[in-house]
Amino acid sequence: MTSLRFVFWFLIISFSASAQKDYKLWLQYNKIQNAVVASEYKTNLGGIVALGSSETSKISLAELETGILDMLGSKPETRSAIKGDNNVIVGSQPALNSDLQKVLASDFDKINNEGFIIKSISSKNKKQIVITGKNDVGVLYGVYRFLRLIQNHKSISNLNIVDAPKINLRVLNHWDNLDRTVERGYAGFSLWNWQKLPDFIDQRYIDYARANASIGINGTVLTNVNANALILTPQYLEKVKALANVFRPYGIKVYLTARFSAPIEIGGLKTADPKDTAVANWWKEKAKEIYNRIPDFGGFLVKANSEGQPGPQNYGRDHIDGANMLADAVAPFGGIIMWRAFVYSEHDANDRAKQAYAEFQPYDGKFKDNVIVQVKNGAIDFQPREPFHPLFGAMPETPLMMEFQITQEYLGFSTHLVYLPKLFQEVLEADTYQKGKGSTVAKVIDGSLSPQKLTGIAGVSNIGNDLNWTGHPFAQANWYGFGRLAWDPYLDSETIADEWLRSTFSNDEDFIKPIKTMMITSREAVVNYMTPLGLHHIMDTGHHYGPGPWVSDLSRPEWNPTYYHKADKNGIGFDRSKTGTNATAQYAQELEQLFDNAQTCPEIDLLWFHHLSWDYKLKNGQTLWNGLALKYQEGVNQVLEMQNTWNNSEKYVDKERFKEVQMLLKIQYKEAKWWRDACLLYFQQYSGKELPAGVEPPIQTLEYFKSLKFPFAPGN
Amino acid sequence: MTSLRFVFWFLIISFSASAQKDYKLWLQYNKIQNAVVASEYKTNLGGIVALGSSETSKISLAELETGILDMLGSKPETRSAIKGDNNVIVGSQPALNSDLQKVLASDFDKINNEGFIIKSISSKNKKQIVITGKNDVGVLYGVYRFLRLIQNHKSISNLNIVDAPKINLRVLNHWDNLDRTVERGYAGFSLWNWQKLPDFIDQRYIDYARANASIGINGTVLTNVNANALILTPQYLEKVKALANVFRPYGIKVYLTARFSAPIEIGGLKTADPKDTAVANWWKEKAKEIYNRIPDFGGFLVKANSEGQPGPQNYGRDHIDGANMLADAVAPFGGIIMWRAFVYSEHDANDRAKQAYAEFQPYDGKFKDNVIVQVKNGAIDFQPREPFHPLFGAMPETPLMMEFQITQEYLGFSTHLVYLPKLFQEVLEADTYQKGKGSTVAKVIDGSLSPQKLTGIAGVSNIGNDLNWTGHPFAQANWYGFGRLAWDPYLDSETIADEWLRSTFSNDEDFIKPIKTMMITSREAVVNYMTPLGLHHIMDTGHHYGPGPWVSDLSRPEWNPTYYHKADKNGIGFDRSKTGTNATAQYAQELEQLFDNAQTCPEIDLLWFHHLSWDYKLKNGQTLWNGLALKYQEGVNQVLEMQNTWNNSEKYVDKERFKEVQMLLKIQYKEAKWWRDACLLYFQQYSGKELPAGVEPPIQTLEYFKSLKFPFAPGN
Repeated sequence: MTSLRFVFWFLIISFSASAQKDYKLWLQYNKIQNAVVASEYKTNLGGIVALGSSETSKISLAELETGILDMLGSKPETRSAIKGDNNVIVGSQPALNSDLQKVLASDFDKINNEGFIIKSISSKNKKQIVITGKNDVGVLYGVYRFLRLIQNHKSISNLNIVDAPKINLRVLNHWDNLDRTVERGYAGFSLWNWQKLPDFIDQRYIDYARANASIGINGTVLTNVNANALILTPQYLEKVKALANVFRPYGIKVYLTARFSAPIEIGGLKTADPKDTAVANWWKEKAKEIYNRIPDFGGFLVKANSEGQPGPQNYGRDHIDGANMLADAVAPFGGIIMWRAFVYSEHDANDRAKQAYAEFQPYDGKFKDNVIVQVKNGAIDFQPREPFHPLFGAMPETPLMMEFQITQEYLGFSTHLVYLPKLFQEVLEADTYQKGKGSTVAKVIDGSLSPQKLTGIAGVSNIGNDLNWTGHPFAQANWYGFGRLAWDPYLDSETIADEWLRSTFSNDEDFIKPIKTMMITSREAVVNYMTPLGLHHIMDTGHHYGPGPWVSDLSRPEWNPTYYHKADKNGIGFDRSKTGTNATAQYAQELEQLFDNAQTCPEIDLLWFHHLSWDYKLKNGQTLWNGLALKYQEGVNQVLEMQNTWNNSEKYVDKERFKEVQMLLKIQYKEAKWWRDACLLYFQQYSGKELPAGVEPPIQTLEYFKSLKFPFAPGN
Repeated sequence: MTSLRFVFWFLIISFSASAQKDYKLWLQYNKIQNAVVASEYKTNLGGIVALGSSETSKISLAELETGILDMLGSKPETRSAIKGDNNVIVGSQPALNSDLQKVLASDFDKINNEGFIIKSISSKNKKQIVITGKNDVGVLYGVYRFLRLIQNHKSISNLNIVDAPKINLRVLNHWDNLDRTVERGYAGFSLWNWQKLPDFIDQRYIDYARANASIGINGTVLTNVNANALILTPQYLEKVKALANVFRPYGIKVYLTARFSAPIEIGGLKTADPKDTAVANWWKEKAKEIYNRIPDFGGFLVKANSEGQPGPQNYGRDHIDGANMLADAVAPFGGIIMWRAFVYSEHDANDRAKQAYAEFQPYDGKFKDNVIVQVKNGAIDFQPREPFHPLFGAMPETPLMMEFQITQEYLGFSTHLVYLPKLFQEVLEADTYQKGKGSTVAKVIDGSLSPQKLTGIAGVSNIGNDLNWTGHPFAQANWYGFGRLAWDPYLDSETIADEWLRSTFSNDEDFIKPIKTMMITSREAVVNYMTPLGLHHIMDTGHHYGPGPWVSDLSRPEWNPTYYHKADKNGIGFDRSKTGTNATAQYAQELEQLFDNAQTCPEIDLLWFHHLSWDYKLKNGQTLWNGLALKYQEGVNQVLEMQNTWNNSEKYVDKERFKEVQMLLKIQYKEAKWWRDACLLYFQQYSGKELPAGVEPPIQTLEYFKSLKFPFAPGN
């Protein structure tokens, strides 16, 4: 009863607090208790002069007023014209008076259409703050940035911020089905209540748009890449239109997934062959129908000829044929096609990691101007760690869109605290060497390595209808961090964690410092307790929750964990070097050489590229077996340390969220041990070796771990 | 754009308000603005003396403190002993001192174990308020009642409330599946996050328990009656245990649905024959296993040999055999079996309305003591209106449990505002005449007509993980009203609406009066625009959303709307009189005679019992055709009036909920017209008559209405 009592006294309190804090994400706008800090803000915020009358302008003003009211306890006067000093002047470039336009002229030259300027100026000897941009959405982004300064207790006395997104398409991918289940969704079910749309506008749609705008996300693909053609019927398009209307003033465009066989399923045609005129015309008419409803519709995201989805290859055509046919359909309206490169053939027994490159690299330069190829960050599938996808940098004539997974399909669902911006940063900073040293993935993505008309980044959403949106309070940071890196892929994940923690919890340094460390550590912890040293895809089948290195009975070899770790008496790992599948040859020469040799291959990727004996000596002198076992233990230890860190933060956090995270970390610790024990017991069968000192002996048997089943695991 | 702009300006504001108000149900604890009212409370609430140390006692105190703090802006002093006057003394009978016990002795005699006393007393010449009961849960019920007095601005100066529930088992039935879909659920998905249980205790579990305790609900069946045996495996029982631990201090017992074939599916047996010793033993062991984890486990709810579910008849046994075998398994632990009478044979082409009676009535007196037979309120299936089920009153030797449906399967999902306590009251007040005039259904249910050891009432829950729990803000009133009627089946639904409105929205009389009228009207409105004059089950197939009187192609005749309305050139209606299926004979003689004759049959049930010509003269002199058409129109008009009423209430309601209800009423109005037009166009084919004056002509064609499809309608 003791632990039970504990639960109660933490969670009882009252309805309001929990529902509210969890729901408000990083827009808590907590009242500032520090009088010195608050005083500076009050001094500088004498009045608000809001210029512009668009819906977006109204949102900017409302947000500013709400934020300041909540944080300072009083609202600045709203003034219809600039009078006196210490005003915040909020409006787009065309709305500013000529004096202000002149003062800011050189700043405007530095930003693109979505950029903003936040500047302390002196106009007619009066001190003012101007928040502006080339258009109203830029201003809105500026307002959110300005509010974040206050949330983070930064000085606003002498501001000079000129910022603009480095990537054009900053898009969430919702793998949401029309029945509201979410493929790989662990935060409840889909936000989109199709049954009540178009006439019922759920407040969550607005709050979703608001949260996204606050971090600069400007697009959302509403539907699953494993698509249902019904979304393209008039009944559903009316619903999509209603959502587009809600999102538009927040600067967010709506996209849909296009099922390649839709002309057959809902069009009554006998084929979906992209070279068939009737098919091409059907898509053209469909595009027209959509744009009639939604003039700023973004376009289509397509998963074709991948994992059973229909595509051009069903008709002897290729990805170029398919993508370009759809591109022609949306081009007259300014739409784009995001064509996914996540393909692997069910008939090709060769290394799955090589297949997307092998298929897509030769297409370089052959897609229409309004096609962007969407490539997962790694060549397998959203593992705790993968080397960057070899397509990055290898298609200089083709815009490549990064696809990150924010939802934790392979990373413990919404139960494990894993701070993903750390993972994203690692990928973005990876050097492809495709144009010499410094050819980072970020430079591929933002078009600075090889200029691209389109640049883009997609995140597979972790958002659902859970009260706290993301299932785990800290998973909110992954949504936030994705948005921030989409805006600027050169940001440091630690900086992002700092911003997020201050906006979401507290500005107390005694809280920030250890919790930031906890977040940063969390990504390496999950690698360690799940897939250290380059292991990958050894999760249990289907749902991908928990360990399943023993699974070997699936119909397609490349779905089996045994395919990936290849553990045997001789050792463990996937030989992708010249002596193996030669996947290393898909990288630039510098990297090929580096990866090809186990001695030079980074140890974090060792078993990704090499099959090595259990006695192989790691750099620290340990044998591979011992090193592997110690890495698993290290992951467990790291989670234990995360628990301690969190427990020490109790006084800085509201009771509800404190307790939620505490319970989740307890599960994570239990499951980290499950991973360690199940994997080591399994691999031990092959290594035949004892666990080294420092590794806790398993309490359960391998048979026990194999017996665990999760028939209703979510997201599957 | 105008309407869009409108949406924005109502919904923007900020995250907090909407999430909070919608979430807090009838426990808003709004700050009392009226100084006179607040002053009386402050005077009487000088201190709180909380006696008792159980979890439940702690909840009582915390709730009292939270409620008073929120409503009055300050918290009374918590005193460890009775000092001074104007204390609220909170504690169970054994915790009271002997003086207080003596003063309240005669009151204690009036209440059962769950009852409570709220009384202003003078003890040692000091004025005090005592909230007490025989045990801590009774006290908790008293605390909620006391808080409701304050919420409703009632005087607390001279209290003398002695109340106790009239029905023992007050139970919610959740038709929640293990994948979190909810059969007939329209408020999102299941609250039970099985994946994160048992270690993660969602705050919603606690808030759910709190809401239920506040209205006296004392049991919850967690799983769908179309059951999955996996819930009975250790893995899931651990999760059930965690929920039971949360609910226990709120006085709520957990029940599960038992899949009759579980011994085969998870027990490894070859049969589930209730007469098989191995089967009976398996259930006994299973019960023991459950009670080891959950000592106060409530028991099982069973749907057997109904709509394809397995049951004793699969082995040539009957419901008695099945129910009694399970009853024996749980009896040693004090458990009960709720055995559903919702059966109709797929092999019996006779009137479906007669089958449950025909099958179950002969079983009267044959069930074990710990079996209660759960009977739906009507003989078909949760229609907008049905005559009460003929089993009520017809099984005097058997406890019958009422099964109401709170979720609006046949009543417009969570999109239509329908105040169901009005429907529940109609059923409870219905006179069965089984022991002469005054033998109401309520008296059957509460055991006052024929004494029963067990008495019970079940409500099929409308609760899901939507932010507002029930999808429609006013559907919260249906949950609330069910609880209130379960506590006291003689309450008036208008009184309940009054309480609910004051607790949920406002005490302003200018708000209460019209909105209460709107609620009361709403039930007759839905009958009128869906199924007037005794029509029933003409909803579209499967999902039961919208009209489908034309559906006639389903494999089982009694699934087809045409089976129920039997419209043809000669007229419309189901002849259940002596000239027809003679279902009327299942009622007491007085009613049989009344129903049998179209002239004496209440017109609200006319077409339930009679097939009448289109020219049949109604009591108001209209022909049946004209009367039917005018009823449809009346329903539409009523919804229009509801819209007007709500629009006039704008100033009394927070913007978010105002707008939500406004949008939903707009949909309801659109759909009321859809119902009217589709049904009248369809029936007109047979009547061959023009629409009477006053009925708006349809704009769409019958073919259009028939073409509407809802492939992803929720809850199906």
